[in-house]
Amino acid sequence: MKLELPDKVTLIEVGPRDGFQFEKQFIPTDLKVQIISNLVDAGLKQIQVTSFVHPAKVPQMADAEELVRRLPEYADVIYSGLVLNTRGVARAQRAGLTHVEVSISASDTHSRKNTGMSFDRAVAQVEEMIGLAQKADLNIRAGIQCAFGCAYEGEISHARVLNIARSYVSYGVDAIALSDTTGMADPARVTQLIELLLPEIGEIPIILHFHDTRGLGLANVLAALQCGITHFDTALAGMGGCPFVPGAAGNIATEDTASLMASMGILTGIDISRIIPCSRLLEEWLNKKFSGKIHRLPS
Amino acid sequence: MKLELPDKVTLIEVGPRDGFQFEKQFIPTDLKVQIISNLVDAGLKQIQVTSFVHPAKVPQMADAEELVRRLPEYADVIYSGLVLNTRGVARAQRAGLTHVEVSISASDTHSRKNTGMSFDRAVAQVEEMIGLAQKADLNIRAGIQCAFGCAYEGEISHARVLNIARSYVSYGVDAIALSDTTGMADPARVTQLIELLLPEIGEIPIILHFHDTRGLGLANVLAALQCGITHFDTALAGMGGCPFVPGAAGNIATEDTASLMASMGILTGIDISRIIPCSRLLEEWLNKKFSGKIHRLPS
Repeated sequence: MKLELPDKVTLIEVGPRDGFQFEKQFIPTDLKVQIISNLVDAGLKQIQVTSFVHPAKVPQMADAEELVRRLPEYADVIYSGLVLNTRGVARAQRAGLTHVEVSISASDTHSRKNTGMSFDRAVAQVEEMIGLAQKADLNIRAGIQCAFGCAYEGEISHARVLNIARSYVSYGVDAIALSDTTGMADPARVTQLIELLLPEIGEIPIILHFHDTRGLGLANVLAALQCGITHFDTALAGMGGCPFVPGAAGNIATEDTASLMASMGILTGIDISRIIPCSRLLEEWLNKKFSGKIHRLPS
Repeated sequence: MKLELPDKVTLIEVGPRDGFQFEKQFIPTDLKVQIISNLVDAGLKQIQVTSFVHPAKVPQMADAEELVRRLPEYADVIYSGLVLNTRGVARAQRAGLTHVEVSISASDTHSRKNTGMSFDRAVAQVEEMIGLAQKADLNIRAGIQCAFGCAYEGEISHARVLNIARSYVSYGVDAIALSDTTGMADPARVTQLIELLLPEIGEIPIILHFHDTRGLGLANVLAALQCGITHFDTALAGMGGCPFVPGAAGNIATEDTASLMASMGILTGIDISRIIPCSRLLEEWLNKKFSGKIHRLPS
């Protein structure tokens, strides 16, 4: 048996959004700009830089507009923002972003607890957001949270995820992201869902977003690679966490994922040695250890 | 694509040997016996319990004989010991063990630094040890360290590993273990080596021993499962480390590996909830955090 693997993958850095939002201590905008600039220098071409959310809810993201304004511009680098409502879409557009991410949870319970909205209400809202974003000519990445299971509801049927994906296709989104919000995916489930999803979505790229809560993040990546998936969210140092499990491991680490790819001869365009100092700087500044591995090895 | 996976795998607990030997603080024999007994209660049927090494070299293993004497006996549980020379073989036999592990490094430099012996000298010694063990009717697991790469030499050719394996086959060993001593394996390399090895070794089972130094441990397990491998070394809590990288992650964690299997419907016979308290006890006693994930989640 030879592993069937793609020649090239794209890692989408989500640390500045999914990682930073877990930090209670406000990371100064200066430092955020520095980290994001360094990530660009390290070869990351897509970075989710912030979230347009009410500052009272997530004070860490209170500087969204200022941050976007201060980011260095490059023709081949995409900065995106997570938007949670129509107001967020408008803010992202005014801030000058060209790419936004909207998302809904495949779990009704998770949706209610996380956003106060039922699944049906969330679907209606996301449709409105997508409409608004399309009018503004924004590129839309549409996410499905809890795509592989829910901490409250347990198993989430593939049918439920496929239905959301079909709606996204009908709305004309530009990419679909499957999020393993609470680290419940395993390689068999990943393979099953992707195989069911691929025939439904035509040419729309699928992005996978894994957390390493149970240590299965890179095994899930391997399974997805074997299904032909070439886009993965990662966070420097493995920042981030699980809202339901204090202290749990975060996103799969950018360095570790890039190292897996490099080791297997898959191109990412990423210079790992330029990410590691960012990870170490953040660990020192925040005085904590993230769950990634490579940045802790001697370089 | 459907993942081709076995129905059932055997996890071989190596924490009491490969994990404990990394700890400078002497773990009392009482505690060792308690942990090993609890691991048996959790369903582990094969446990590498100690190493017969000179106590001045590894003081942690100075209680090898006493430990073996005090272990609870079960008809279906195998305790094994690592032996490093002919004296170790004799000690293991006298202590009452029925199973021993011998091993050599595929890397000449690693062999010299780790044992003071050249590769050729190590091969001659291991042959002598195997002969002695066979006369004593011991079951012999024969290991190949640095099978996927060496921290000193870098790449280790598959040919080199295959040659050692062929020698082991000619000696009539009972199992062959491939060790990723310094965490340099990746899923592609694992697949390549196993596919080359399988036709050479007939019915002799292959055991894989992965460290999670670069976070690739369970991705490597997934690749091996797809090649039909059903035996893996694991250590509770992810104990252990890398002799060349202070603070590096240890062995793949028993709980995390068992959880991967359970999640994919692969039988291990292991009750994860009975391992977690052992991991937490050791972390508390040693006042450190190991690299496993599951034992840190709320249960």
